[in-house]
Amino acid sequence: MGRRSMREEIVEAAVERFHARGFNGAGVKDITDGAGVPKGSFYNHFESKEALAVVALERYGESRRLHELTDASVDPLLRLRRHFEFLRDENTSRDFTRGCLIGGLGTEMADHSDLIREAVRTGLAGWEQALAAPIAEAQASGRVAATTDARMLARFILNAWEGTLISTRSDRSEDSYEVFFDVVFGTLLA
Amino acid sequence: MGRRSMREEIVEAAVERFHARGFNGAGVKDITDGAGVPKGSFYNHFESKEALAVVALERYGESRRLHELTDASVDPLLRLRRHFEFLRDENTSRDFTRGCLIGGLGTEMADHSDLIREAVRTGLAGWEQALAAPIAEAQASGRVAATTDARMLARFILNAWEGTLISTRSDRSEDSYEVFFDVVFGTLLA
Repeated sequence: MGRRSMREEIVEAAVERFHARGFNGAGVKDITDGAGVPKGSFYNHFESKEALAVVALERYGESRRLHELTDASVDPLLRLRRHFEFLRDENTSRDFTRGCLIGGLGTEMADHSDLIREAVRTGLAGWEQALAAPIAEAQASGRVAATTDARMLARFILNAWEGTLISTRSDRSEDSYEVFFDVVFGTLLA
Repeated sequence: MGRRSMREEIVEAAVERFHARGFNGAGVKDITDGAGVPKGSFYNHFESKEALAVVALERYGESRRLHELTDASVDPLLRLRRHFEFLRDENTSRDFTRGCLIGGLGTEMADHSDLIREAVRTGLAGWEQALAAPIAEAQASGRVAATTDARMLARFILNAWEGTLISTRSDRSEDSYEVFFDVVFGTLLA
Protein backbone atom coordinates (compact mmCIF):
# COMPACT_ATOMS: atom_id res chain seq x y z
CA MET A 1 0.00 0.00 0.00
CA GLY A 2 1.28 3.48 -0.82
CA ARG A 3 1.30 6.37 1.63
CA ARG A 4 -2.02 8.09 2.02
CA SER A 5 -2.22 11.41 0.24
CA MET A 6 -1.73 14.63 2.15
CA ARG A 7 -5.38 15.50 1.50
CA GLU A 8 -6.47 12.21 3.03
CA GLU A 9 -4.29 12.79 6.11
CA ILE A 10 -5.94 16.19 6.56
CA VAL A 11 -9.46 14.75 6.26
CA GLU A 12 -8.76 12.05 8.85
CA ALA A 13 -7.24 14.53 11.27
CA ALA A 14 -10.20 16.87 10.73
CA VAL A 15 -12.74 14.17 11.61
CA GLU A 16 -10.80 13.47 14.78
CA ARG A 17 -10.17 17.11 15.79
CA PHE A 18 -13.66 18.45 14.97
CA HIS A 19 -15.16 15.53 16.87
CA ALA A 20 -12.97 16.09 19.90
CA ARG A 21 -13.01 19.90 19.98
CA GLY A 22 -15.85 21.21 17.79
CA PHE A 23 -15.53 23.55 14.80
CA ASN A 24 -14.43 26.68 16.66
CA GLY A 25 -12.33 24.67 19.09
CA ALA A 26 -10.22 23.05 16.33
CA GLY A 27 -8.02 25.46 14.41
CA VAL A 28 -6.48 24.80 11.00
CA LYS A 29 -3.11 24.41 12.73
CA ASP A 30 -4.50 21.79 15.16
CA ILE A 31 -5.71 19.86 12.14
CA THR A 32 -2.52 20.13 10.07
CA ASP A 33 -0.47 19.26 13.18
CA GLY A 34 -2.73 16.23 13.71
CA ALA A 35 -2.20 15.26 10.08
CA GLY A 36 1.56 15.79 10.31
CA VAL A 37 1.58 18.17 7.34
CA PRO A 38 2.75 21.79 7.07
CA LYS A 39 0.05 24.36 7.88
CA GLY A 40 0.81 26.12 4.59
CA SER A 41 -0.31 23.05 2.63
CA PHE A 42 -3.89 23.32 3.91
CA TYR A 43 -5.18 25.77 1.32
CA ASN A 44 -3.72 23.71 -1.52
CA HIS A 45 -6.32 21.11 -0.65
CA PHE A 46 -9.29 22.98 0.83
CA GLU A 47 -10.78 26.38 0.16
CA SER A 48 -11.70 26.91 3.81
CA LYS A 49 -12.14 25.20 7.16
CA GLU A 50 -15.87 25.10 6.36
CA ALA A 51 -15.22 23.20 3.13
CA LEU A 52 -13.11 20.73 5.10
CA ALA A 53 -15.92 20.32 7.66
CA VAL A 54 -18.26 19.30 4.83
CA VAL A 55 -15.85 16.54 3.74
CA ALA A 56 -15.32 15.50 7.38
CA LEU A 57 -19.08 15.14 7.83
CA GLU A 58 -19.32 12.93 4.75
CA ARG A 59 -16.44 10.80 5.99
CA TYR A 60 -17.98 10.50 9.45
CA GLY A 61 -21.32 9.53 7.89
CA GLU A 62 -19.58 6.68 6.05
CA SER A 63 -18.37 5.34 9.41
CA ARG A 64 -21.96 4.98 10.75
CA ARG A 65 -22.33 1.49 9.14
CA LEU A 66 -25.60 2.47 7.49
CA HIS A 67 -25.29 -0.34 4.94
CA GLU A 68 -25.92 -2.83 7.77
CA LEU A 69 -29.39 -1.33 8.22
CA THR A 70 -30.44 -2.48 4.76
CA ASP A 71 -28.97 -6.02 5.02
CA ALA A 72 -32.11 -8.05 4.35
CA SER A 73 -30.46 -11.28 5.59
CA VAL A 74 -30.84 -10.02 9.18
CA ASP A 75 -34.14 -9.59 11.01
CA PRO A 76 -35.16 -5.89 10.69
CA LEU A 77 -35.62 -5.21 14.41
CA LEU A 78 -32.33 -6.96 15.19
CA ARG A 79 -30.62 -4.75 12.59
CA LEU A 80 -31.98 -1.66 14.30
CA ARG A 81 -30.99 -2.86 17.75
CA ARG A 82 -27.47 -3.76 16.61
CA HIS A 83 -27.11 -0.35 14.99
CA PHE A 84 -27.86 1.53 18.20
CA GLU A 85 -25.77 -0.93 20.22
CA PHE A 86 -22.84 -0.15 17.92
CA LEU A 87 -23.37 3.59 18.44
CA ARG A 88 -23.77 3.17 22.20
CA ASP A 89 -20.70 0.97 22.58
CA GLU A 90 -18.59 3.35 20.50
CA ASN A 91 -19.65 6.23 22.72
CA THR A 92 -19.18 4.29 25.98
CA SER A 93 -15.68 3.30 24.88
CA ARG A 94 -14.91 7.04 24.66
CA ASP A 95 -16.08 7.55 28.24
CA PHE A 96 -19.25 9.28 26.99
CA THR A 97 -17.32 12.05 25.25
CA ARG A 98 -17.54 13.44 21.70
CA GLY A 99 -21.16 12.58 20.95
CA CYS A 100 -22.06 12.55 17.25
CA LEU A 101 -20.07 14.73 14.85
CA ILE A 102 -23.16 15.46 12.75
CA GLY A 103 -25.23 16.59 15.73
CA GLY A 104 -22.26 18.45 17.17
CA LEU A 105 -21.44 20.50 14.08
CA GLY A 106 -25.17 20.98 13.47
CA THR A 107 -25.59 22.47 16.93
CA GLU A 108 -22.51 24.64 16.76
CA MET A 109 -22.55 25.77 13.13
CA ALA A 110 -25.99 25.42 11.46
CA ASP A 111 -26.85 29.04 12.21
CA HIS A 112 -23.51 30.34 10.97
CA SER A 113 -22.60 28.38 7.86
CA ASP A 114 -25.02 27.38 5.12
CA LEU A 115 -22.39 24.98 3.77
CA ILE A 116 -22.15 23.09 7.05
CA ARG A 117 -25.90 23.29 7.67
CA GLU A 118 -26.55 21.67 4.29
CA ALA A 119 -23.99 18.90 4.99
CA VAL A 120 -25.62 18.23 8.38
CA ARG A 121 -29.07 18.15 6.78
CA THR A 122 -27.83 15.70 4.14
CA GLY A 123 -26.13 13.52 6.75
CA LEU A 124 -29.24 13.31 8.92
CA ALA A 125 -31.49 12.66 5.90
CA GLY A 126 -29.34 9.74 4.70
CA TRP A 127 -29.27 8.25 8.17
CA GLU A 128 -33.04 8.66 8.52
CA GLN A 129 -33.55 6.92 5.18
CA ALA A 130 -31.35 4.00 6.24
CA LEU A 131 -33.23 3.65 9.55
CA ALA A 132 -36.58 3.80 7.75
CA ALA A 133 -35.82 0.69 5.68
CA PRO A 134 -35.98 -1.90 8.49
CA ILE A 135 -38.81 0.02 10.18
CA ALA A 136 -40.87 -0.19 6.96
CA GLU A 137 -40.10 -3.92 6.68
CA ALA A 138 -41.22 -4.53 10.27
CA GLN A 139 -44.37 -2.50 9.62
CA ALA A 140 -45.11 -4.38 6.38
CA SER A 141 -44.91 -7.72 8.19
CA GLY A 142 -47.23 -6.41 10.93
CA ARG A 143 -44.64 -6.67 13.73
CA VAL A 144 -44.62 -2.92 14.26
CA ALA A 145 -47.77 -0.76 14.17
CA ALA A 146 -47.92 1.45 11.10
CA THR A 147 -49.51 4.36 12.98
CA THR A 148 -46.52 6.58 12.14
CA ASP A 149 -44.96 6.68 8.67
CA ALA A 150 -41.66 4.72 8.70
CA ARG A 151 -39.60 7.67 7.52
CA MET A 152 -41.06 9.98 10.16
CA LEU A 153 -40.65 7.38 12.90
CA ALA A 154 -37.03 6.93 11.79
CA ARG A 155 -36.56 10.68 12.09
CA PHE A 156 -38.04 10.75 15.58
CA ILE A 157 -35.81 7.90 16.74
CA LEU A 158 -32.70 9.53 15.24
CA ASN A 159 -33.55 12.84 16.93
CA ALA A 160 -34.07 10.98 20.22
CA TRP A 161 -30.65 9.37 19.76
CA GLU A 162 -28.95 12.70 19.11
CA GLY A 163 -30.52 14.13 22.28
CA THR A 164 -29.55 11.02 24.23
CA LEU A 165 -25.90 11.73 23.42
CA ILE A 166 -26.20 15.25 24.88
CA SER A 167 -27.55 13.74 28.08
CA THR A 168 -24.95 10.96 28.41
CA ARG A 169 -22.25 13.51 27.72
CA SER A 170 -23.44 15.68 30.58
CA ASP A 171 -23.98 12.99 33.22
CA ARG A 172 -21.54 10.35 31.93
CA SER A 173 -23.89 7.54 32.83
CA GLU A 174 -25.71 4.86 30.85
CA ASP A 175 -29.14 5.94 32.16
CA SER A 176 -30.18 7.76 28.99
CA TYR A 177 -29.08 4.85 26.78
CA GLU A 178 -31.16 2.50 28.90
CA VAL A 179 -34.34 4.51 28.57
CA PHE A 180 -33.64 5.00 24.84
CA PHE A 181 -33.53 1.22 24.29
CA ASP A 182 -36.52 0.63 26.59
CA VAL A 183 -38.77 3.17 24.86
CA VAL A 184 -37.62 2.58 21.28
CA PHE A 185 -37.68 -1.23 21.36
CA GLY A 186 -40.27 -1.70 24.13
CA THR A 187 -42.87 0.83 22.93
CA LEU A 188 -42.19 2.49 19.57
CA LEU A 189 -41.08 -0.62 17.70
CA ALA A 190 -43.15 -3.14 19.67
CA MET B 1 -37.27 51.25 38.64
CA GLY B 2 -33.56 51.68 39.22
CA ARG B 3 -30.94 50.76 36.63
CA ARG B 4 -30.05 47.11 36.48
CA SER B 5 -26.66 46.32 37.97
CA MET B 6 -23.65 45.89 35.74
CA ARG B 7 -23.49 42.23 36.73
CA GLU B 8 -27.10 41.75 35.64
CA GLU B 9 -26.43 43.45 32.28
CA ILE B 10 -23.51 41.06 31.72
CA VAL B 11 -25.60 37.98 32.56
CA GLU B 12 -28.38 39.02 30.18
CA ALA B 13 -25.95 39.72 27.37
CA ALA B 14 -24.23 36.39 28.03
CA VAL B 15 -27.47 34.42 27.71
CA GLU B 16 -28.12 36.16 24.40
CA ARG B 17 -24.56 35.89 23.01
CA PHE B 18 -23.90 32.27 24.10
CA HIS B 19 -27.27 31.28 22.68
CA ALA B 20 -26.63 33.01 19.36
CA ARG B 21 -22.94 32.13 18.94
CA GLY B 22 -22.02 29.29 21.30
CA PHE B 23 -19.33 29.37 24.01
CA ASN B 24 -16.28 29.58 21.76
CA GLY B 25 -18.08 31.84 19.28
CA ALA B 26 -18.89 34.49 21.91
CA GLY B 27 -15.86 36.29 23.34
CA VAL B 28 -15.80 38.23 26.59
CA LYS B 29 -15.66 41.44 24.54
CA ASP B 30 -18.78 40.44 22.54
CA ILE B 31 -20.56 39.98 25.83
CA THR B 32 -19.39 43.20 27.50
CA ASP B 33 -20.18 45.10 24.25
CA GLY B 34 -23.65 43.52 24.26
CA ALA B 35 -24.06 44.56 27.88
CA GLY B 36 -22.79 48.08 27.18
CA VAL B 37 -20.14 47.85 29.89
CA PRO B 38 -16.33 48.23 29.69
CA LYS B 39 -14.48 44.98 28.95
CA GLY B 40 -12.25 45.65 31.93
CA SER B 41 -15.22 45.40 34.29
CA PHE B 42 -15.86 41.75 33.42
CA TYR B 43 -13.45 40.19 35.90
CA ASN B 44 -14.80 42.35 38.74
CA HIS B 45 -17.97 40.29 38.42
CA PHE B 46 -16.94 36.86 37.14
CA GLU B 47 -13.88 34.74 37.65
CA SER B 48 -13.97 33.38 34.12
CA LYS B 49 -16.11 33.01 31.00
CA GLU B 50 -16.90 29.49 32.24
CA ALA B 51 -18.23 30.84 35.55
CA LEU B 52 -20.42 33.26 33.58
CA ALA B 53 -21.70 30.38 31.42
CA VAL B 54 -22.85 28.58 34.58
CA VAL B 55 -24.90 31.63 35.63
CA ALA B 56 -26.22 32.04 32.06
CA LEU B 57 -27.40 28.41 32.09
CA GLU B 58 -29.25 28.96 35.38
CA ARG B 59 -30.87 32.11 34.02
CA TYR B 60 -31.86 30.35 30.80
CA GLY B 61 -33.33 27.46 32.81
CA GLU B 62 -35.52 29.96 34.72
CA SER B 63 -36.96 31.11 31.37
CA ARG B 64 -38.24 27.59 30.50
CA ARG B 65 -41.50 28.14 32.46
CA LEU B 66 -41.03 24.90 34.39
CA HIS B 67 -43.41 26.07 37.15
CA GLU B 68 -46.28 25.73 34.65
CA LEU B 69 -45.60 21.98 34.48
CA THR B 70 -46.52 21.57 38.15
CA ASP B 71 -49.69 23.73 38.04
CA ALA B 72 -52.23 21.19 39.25
CA SER B 73 -55.18 23.38 38.14
CA VAL B 74 -54.44 22.40 34.50
CA ASP B 75 -54.92 18.91 33.03
CA PRO B 76 -51.52 17.15 33.13
CA LEU B 77 -51.39 16.21 29.44
CA LEU B 78 -52.49 19.71 28.46
CA ARG B 79 -49.68 21.12 30.61
CA LEU B 80 -47.17 18.96 28.79
CA ARG B 81 -48.54 19.85 25.39
CA ARG B 82 -48.52 23.59 26.16
CA HIS B 83 -44.95 23.34 27.42
CA PHE B 84 -43.67 21.90 24.16
CA GLU B 85 -45.85 24.27 22.15
CA PHE B 86 -44.21 27.16 24.00
CA LEU B 87 -40.76 25.78 23.20
CA ARG B 88 -41.69 25.12 19.57
CA ASP B 89 -43.24 28.56 19.04
CA GLU B 90 -40.25 30.28 20.62
CA ASN B 91 -37.94 28.40 18.27
CA THR B 92 -40.09 28.98 15.19
CA SER B 93 -40.21 32.71 15.96
CA ARG B 94 -36.40 32.66 15.74
CA ASP B 95 -36.55 31.07 12.28
CA PHE B 96 -35.37 27.73 13.72
CA THR B 97 -32.07 29.17 14.95
CA ARG B 98 -30.37 28.97 18.37
CA GLY B 99 -31.86 25.72 19.61
CA CYS B 100 -31.63 25.20 23.37
CA LEU B 101 -28.83 26.89 25.31
CA ILE B 102 -28.52 23.92 27.69
CA GLY B 103 -28.19 21.39 24.85
CA GLY B 104 -25.93 23.74 22.91
CA LEU B 105 -23.42 24.37 25.70
CA GLY B 106 -23.66 20.70 26.68
CA THR B 107 -22.70 19.64 23.17
CA GLU B 108 -19.93 22.16 22.77
CA MET B 109 -18.42 22.22 26.27
CA ALA B 110 -19.30 19.13 28.35
CA ASP B 111 -16.04 17.43 27.36
CA HIS B 112 -13.92 20.50 28.07
CA SER B 113 -15.28 22.11 31.23
CA ASP B 114 -16.44 20.22 34.32
CA LEU B 115 -18.04 23.44 35.58
CA ILE B 116 -20.23 23.76 32.49
CA ARG B 117 -20.88 20.03 32.29
CA GLU B 118 -22.21 20.08 35.85
CA ALA B 119 -24.44 23.10 35.12
CA VAL B 120 -25.83 21.34 32.02
CA ARG B 121 -26.44 18.16 34.02
CA THR B 122 -28.24 20.15 36.71
CA GLY B 123 -30.32 22.04 34.13
CA LEU B 124 -31.42 18.85 32.38
CA ALA B 125 -32.17 17.11 35.69
CA GLY B 126 -34.41 19.96 36.89
CA TRP B 127 -36.26 20.01 33.59
CA GLU B 128 -36.68 16.22 33.66
CA GLN B 129 -38.08 16.43 37.18
CA ALA B 130 -40.60 19.11 36.15
CA LEU B 131 -41.71 17.04 33.13
CA ALA B 132 -42.04 13.92 35.29
CA ALA B 133 -44.66 15.54 37.56
CA PRO B 134 -47.55 15.70 35.02
CA ILE B 135 -46.47 12.35 33.51
CA ALA B 136 -46.72 10.71 36.95
CA GLU B 137 -50.16 12.30 37.48
CA ALA B 138 -51.40 11.01 34.12
CA GLN B 139 -50.01 7.56 34.95
CA ALA B 140 -51.62 7.56 38.42
CA SER B 141 -55.03 8.32 36.90
CA GLY B 142 -54.56 5.51 34.35
CA ARG B 143 -54.60 7.82 31.31
CA VAL B 144 -51.00 6.97 30.42
CA ALA B 145 -49.58 3.47 30.69
CA ALA B 146 -47.10 3.12 33.53
CA THR B 147 -44.82 0.76 31.57
CA THR B 148 -41.94 3.25 31.85
CA ASP B 149 -41.10 5.07 35.09
CA ALA B 150 -42.32 8.70 34.86
CA ARG B 151 -38.89 10.16 35.53
CA MET B 152 -37.26 8.00 32.86
CA LEU B 153 -40.03 8.70 30.35
CA ALA B 154 -39.57 12.42 31.05
CA ARG B 155 -35.87 12.02 30.35
CA PHE B 156 -36.51 10.25 27.06
CA ILE B 157 -38.96 12.93 25.93
CA LEU B 158 -36.56 15.73 26.91
CA ASN B 159 -33.72 14.01 25.02
CA ALA B 160 -36.01 13.62 22.00
CA TRP B 161 -36.82 17.34 22.20
CA GLU B 162 -33.13 18.30 22.33
CA GLY B 163 -32.45 16.18 19.24
CA THR B 164 -35.51 17.62 17.50
CA LEU B 165 -33.96 21.07 17.81
CA ILE B 166 -30.78 19.87 16.06
CA SER B 167 -32.90 18.60 13.20
CA THR B 168 -35.10 21.71 12.82
CA ARG B 169 -31.98 23.84 12.97
CA SER B 170 -30.45 21.94 10.07
CA ASP B 171 -33.49 21.75 7.76
CA ARG B 172 -35.40 24.82 9.00
CA SER B 173 -38.73 23.07 8.65
CA GLU B 174 -41.48 22.07 11.09
CA ASP B 175 -41.30 18.39 10.10
CA SER B 176 -39.38 17.27 13.17
CA TYR B 177 -41.70 19.18 15.49
CA GLU B 178 -44.68 17.48 13.88
CA VAL B 179 -43.34 13.98 14.39
CA PHE B 180 -42.28 14.90 17.93
CA PHE B 181 -45.86 15.89 18.83
CA ASP B 182 -47.32 12.89 16.96
CA VAL B 183 -45.13 10.32 18.70
CA VAL B 184 -45.03 11.90 22.17
CA PHE B 185 -48.76 12.67 22.44
CA GLY B 186 -50.09 10.00 20.05
CA THR B 187 -48.01 7.03 21.29
CA LEU B 188 -45.88 7.65 24.39
CA LEU B 189 -48.45 9.57 26.41
CA ALA B 190 -51.56 7.94 24.95
